[in-house]
Amino acid sequence: MASSGELENHNDCFVKLCNPHVATMKEDVLYHFNLSTTTHDFPAMFGDVKFVCVGGSPSRMKAFIRYVASELGLDRPGVDYPNICAGTDRYAMFKVGPVLSVSHGMGIPSIAIMLHELIKLLYHARCSGVTIIRIGTSGGIGLEPGSVVITRQAVDACFKPEFEQVVLGKRVVRSTDLDEQLAQELMQWSTDLSEFTTVVGNTMCTLDFYEGQGRLDGALCSYTEKDKQEYLRAAYAAGVRNIEMESSVFAAMCSACGLRAAVVCVTLLNRLKGDQISSPHEVLAEYQQRPQRLVGYFIKKCLSMA
Amino acid sequence: MASSGELENHNDCFVKLCNPHVATMKEDVLYHFNLSTTTHDFPAMFGDVKFVCVGGSPSRMKAFIRYVASELGLDRPGVDYPNICAGTDRYAMFKVGPVLSVSHGMGIPSIAIMLHELIKLLYHARCSGVTIIRIGTSGGIGLEPGSVVITRQAVDACFKPEFEQVVLGKRVVRSTDLDEQLAQELMQWSTDLSEFTTVVGNTMCTLDFYEGQGRLDGALCSYTEKDKQEYLRAAYAAGVRNIEMESSVFAAMCSACGLRAAVVCVTLLNRLKGDQISSPHEVLAEYQQRPQRLVGYFIKKCLSMA
Repeated sequence: MASSGELENHNDCFVKLCNPHVATMKEDVLYHFNLSTTTHDFPAMFGDVKFVCVGGSPSRMKAFIRYVASELGLDRPGVDYPNICAGTDRYAMFKVGPVLSVSHGMGIPSIAIMLHELIKLLYHARCSGVTIIRIGTSGGIGLEPGSVVITRQAVDACFKPEFEQVVLGKRVVRSTDLDEQLAQELMQWSTDLSEFTTVVGNTMCTLDFYEGQGRLDGALCSYTEKDKQEYLRAAYAAGVRNIEMESSVFAAMCSACGLRAAVVCVTLLNRLKGDQISSPHEVLAEYQQRPQRLVGYFIKKCLSMA
Repeated sequence: MASSGELENHNDCFVKLCNPHVATMKEDVLYHFNLSTTTHDFPAMFGDVKFVCVGGSPSRMKAFIRYVASELGLDRPGVDYPNICAGTDRYAMFKVGPVLSVSHGMGIPSIAIMLHELIKLLYHARCSGVTIIRIGTSGGIGLEPGSVVITRQAVDACFKPEFEQVVLGKRVVRSTDLDEQLAQELMQWSTDLSEFTTVVGNTMCTLDFYEGQGRLDGALCSYTEKDKQEYLRAAYAAGVRNIEMESSVFAAMCSACGLRAAVVCVTLLNRLKGDQISSPHEVLAEYQQRPQRLVGYFIKKCLSMA
């Protein structure tokens, strides 16, 4: 759906760092991956990576690599996908062909550590034309549970498209731009796939799952159902369709480093109707496959057009 | 070391919630533990818990329960410790006698989700007199690697003893008090144990491992070695002896809910001398056992005095 000119431009785009110090380092230890430039040949291991998919749960990211291998016809009977980060339990990483699948745990700090090391990994491997997609779970606002949201803008808990962090004790604000064209492409492939409801909308990224998302069922809560409803309805009015905990720093870091990025999350419940995730296990398991199916389909289509 | 009167007072102290809504719920699903009050008998499973130890890595928390079982003479040949949260890969939980060991992943949001559900679990189980200790890893400032820091105060990236979060779009600031007497007791038991250097000092809690801690080796960095040294030296002057990513919300939530809390972290490197964690695996593995040894010794002494 992108013109061939645009795709060629993206293919020429090397992953870059926003840090002049790394080029001067003799060794780079990616501590939380248990990988190092002196003990591993990054260009040989990862040089062909074109698609990186990330998600919170290690077992879900293992399931994704199996699924995408099968979809791309790259699976072999009896061959499994070893965890490339087997020496640590901080993150899990799997690869098949041009697809890398990495877990990131829950929350902005956890995904940020992973992204710092992942972006350096792609840089050391001299990767170019990389598309990165977060496939996750979220709470929906005003959507049927099981709906998939492709993020237009990642916004903070005040509905602003900003990611604030503290660097050397000072507040720094970064924009949370995602690739608009990629979001539109994913939306069109979802229409083509026609398996579940998909919308493009804003995604609110919070630092907490309970009070930070206006839940009434945490260990601490000092507001009422009415306060909560007002907050969620204000979010809806600001274009927010789902809430999760990683999209803002994901958008900020990927855009700074030349990665074409998207966020595709399924909603596990409608927060206007409740706080607890109490659907049966098999229903939730099927919901969680939806972002995988859409992104698997997208990757297959991209590769067939290349 | 506490007077018997103080211990009795603490033993009478039930875990409490700061949320009136939970008492009105018919069922409480602790989603990220894959436990629910309708499918699990919390008082029977957890009613005898007196010590909760939490740490980032699931495998480290499993190693801890084995170690403490052996120290307390509660291990039986051929009996292993099943993961109580086996139905999910978000967190892992293990129990032996009065000791519960739970993983929390990395960063404030990840430990906050776990603590909301853990505190509700202890409340539903009607636990009283609970002591909770985070046993973790950290970067040290001006200490030999392998030193253990018992946290006096958890401070933010501006060295203030505060935890700021956003609730319904508004900033809320909570204090990060820890139990002073518990920190002193742990310090005295470490002197008694006499196996490694231990200090009591302030712990800086950040939202990021790279830029947020002044590292020069992330994917993004826009400051110099000199800027970094100035920041770390200012932290040292403010009493900070180590840096990690969970202590502030841990202190804020536990003190609000009547849990006697402490943070005991080993330092894996001296940040004044570098950023990368590049010590040999076996050296780091031994360092990581130090908080376990101190806290295991503390629990053994507490139980022998009870």
